[in-house]
Amino acid sequence: MNRFYVTPDVFEKEVVTISGDDYKHLSKVLRLKEGEVIEVLNNNGLKALGEIIQIGDDGADVKLLEREEVKTENPYHVSLFQSYPKGSKLETVCQKMTENGVNTIIPFYSKRSVVKPSRKEFKKIDRLKKVVKSAGEQSGRGIIPTVESPVDFKTVLSKLSDYDLVLVAYESETGQTLKKTLNSLKHKPERIAIIIGPEGGFDPIEIEALKQNGAEIVSLGKRILRTETAGMVLLSQLNFFYE
Amino acid sequence: MNRFYVTPDVFEKEVVTISGDDYKHLSKVLRLKEGEVIEVLNNNGLKALGEIIQIGDDGADVKLLEREEVKTENPYHVSLFQSYPKGSKLETVCQKMTENGVNTIIPFYSKRSVVKPSRKEFKKIDRLKKVVKSAGEQSGRGIIPTVESPVDFKTVLSKLSDYDLVLVAYESETGQTLKKTLNSLKHKPERIAIIIGPEGGFDPIEIEALKQNGAEIVSLGKRILRTETAGMVLLSQLNFFYE
Repeated sequence: MNRFYVTPDVFEKEVVTISGDDYKHLSKVLRLKEGEVIEVLNNNGLKALGEIIQIGDDGADVKLLEREEVKTENPYHVSLFQSYPKGSKLETVCQKMTENGVNTIIPFYSKRSVVKPSRKEFKKIDRLKKVVKSAGEQSGRGIIPTVESPVDFKTVLSKLSDYDLVLVAYESETGQTLKKTLNSLKHKPERIAIIIGPEGGFDPIEIEALKQNGAEIVSLGKRILRTETAGMVLLSQLNFFYE
Repeated sequence: MNRFYVTPDVFEKEVVTISGDDYKHLSKVLRLKEGEVIEVLNNNGLKALGEIIQIGDDGADVKLLEREEVKTENPYHVSLFQSYPKGSKLETVCQKMTENGVNTIIPFYSKRSVVKPSRKEFKKIDRLKKVVKSAGEQSGRGIIPTVESPVDFKTVLSKLSDYDLVLVAYESETGQTLKKTLNSLKHKPERIAIIIGPEGGFDPIEIEALKQNGAEIVSLGKRILRTETAGMVLLSQLNFFYE
């Protein structure tokens, strides 16, 4: 099923118009025709089947059928704080984390980050938003995750009080396993932050600062995971635990 | 720590020589010098720290220190049967599955496979072997996974009796969750097969054939995962369960 997002106010109409890039995708890439059925989502937890009733020169009119709730969202909010990785890895991260149910992605710079803050990295955010939207459509997300502009490590620390569970993936003998950490929680968390370090790992001073801000340091098993793999493994396992 | 694999017989010597592509990587890419320490693995469960004692024109001599067991392997053998995906996705699969502890990767062609068998796909196997070796070095694997040549769906079916647990990721209302499946097992499996369908999913006839060959059909949660994501999510969760 091909999925398209519209804004919540548009979703309230009987007939909605798919325009812009989505229109091009629908008409030129997917080559959908009048009479075909798509899924339309309001990016706020509702979806509806929609019949394409007219394809014009710059928009496609879609008649929405019965609305229903989307059941693909996790029962908790997950923010990923990802240390800015090299090359196109952040695109992989955005795509895979969206498939696994992340709500917000916040890239950040830490001491050993290979990539340093520059205008180029800020510009990339638009590209990442497109990756996230496309992954949201493909995986049937009810809400498209947001991608924020890169921040520094201090800003990450200042945001942690917004979460009732903060998990830092760290390769060391000292961190306990994710399973043990989750088993020891008294309440099911509602807002979870996942923090992933750069290619060279966190500096011990940073780990100390994270701990002082309430973070749980967890190990993800026996092997050393790449920075772009750690987040998706952690979130997959978290989802499995709370399933 | 930089890791290099040698064959088990070479590993028995006091001084081993790193040659070929590994030598180029050690001397030209990493620019390691005499006196520096690396980790040498025998690709059979043993490792040792090694001091570089001489860098020649076509090989580096490394003196091995105390041998010890590698503790990064899973307590079960995992084979991934991956329906041949488009583009470079199989490289991603090979890399991520190696990080997560897979032992063997077997690409196959099924009814809805987008990529059809051709000489090109067979040639790609050499490239995939390099990806797997590099991911093994990076993640500290004790044994480098093997990558087999693509097979047809019938061959996949004929191999399933080698496993005591066969898991097929399938998006449908009928499959029970992975968690429920694992909880219902009476014994901890020793040989596990993970089977992932193509971009368009398995044909219901294929699912029926898999079931008749003892496969468990499992759902991986609420969202639709891409073919290159499903295997790593399944293996991450399996590792978490048996941790």
